[in-house]
Amino acid sequence: MATKEAPQITTHLCPKYERAMEIIGKRWTGLIIRVLCDGPLRFNELHKVVDKVSDRVLTERLRELETAGIVERTVIADSAVRVEYSLTEKGKSMQSVFEAVQSWADDWIRPEDMPPLEETK
Amino acid sequence: MATKEAPQITTHLCPKYERAMEIIGKRWTGLIIRVLCDGPLRFNELHKVVDKVSDRVLTERLRELETAGIVERTVIADSAVRVEYSLTEKGKSMQSVFEAVQSWADDWIRPEDMPPLEETK
Repeated sequence: MATKEAPQITTHLCPKYERAMEIIGKRWTGLIIRVLCDGPLRFNELHKVVDKVSDRVLTERLRELETAGIVERTVIADSAVRVEYSLTEKGKSMQSVFEAVQSWADDWIRPEDMPPLEETK
Repeated sequence: MATKEAPQITTHLCPKYERAMEIIGKRWTGLIIRVLCDGPLRFNELHKVVDKVSDRVLTERLRELETAGIVERTVIADSAVRVEYSLTEKGKSMQSVFEAVQSWADDWIRPEDMPPLEETK
């Protein structure tokens, strides 16, 4: 069997890139970050928007994003104790990634690409 | 309990955006597309690079990407029949998304963000 020269693959193995994709690519993560771009939210407020996800998974994702330094959890001692989630500088800087995704989506996503989203409760 | 005004959330519910994130965000998908940016590959060549994924999952992802119009599967009747995977125009246009990810990763991913990648065989 004739084999051809393996192509020069130089960039995709960048471990930083792979890690970034692991963080961003996880189901719901992108949406959570994008929602928090508009400002800090409490868990229930966030859940109202990212509404296809279960409590458990949303909690898990928020913890992962905290560990990754992208989301900050702040306890505010008001009349009642309040917990807010907001983006760190690292999280805010992802805006350019989301803009690139939106731009591609606007150009290329067609009605036939849009099967009904499955729910993962 | 004092409640504050819900923030104006206008953009994140764009279904095209959500769909794009669903496509791009799926584990291995980004890496597969990025590898194919360098040119068409046969299944085994692709598997050599995206080596942490099982045959089954790689096959599944390639089919999903074909359905989404991002990857093209070409059967070439050579001395032996050869199957190659390549990017469509839609797939190639994702380059800007990957560049945005790489740029963010270069700026923000630190050694402590890099736990050893789990394998999903």
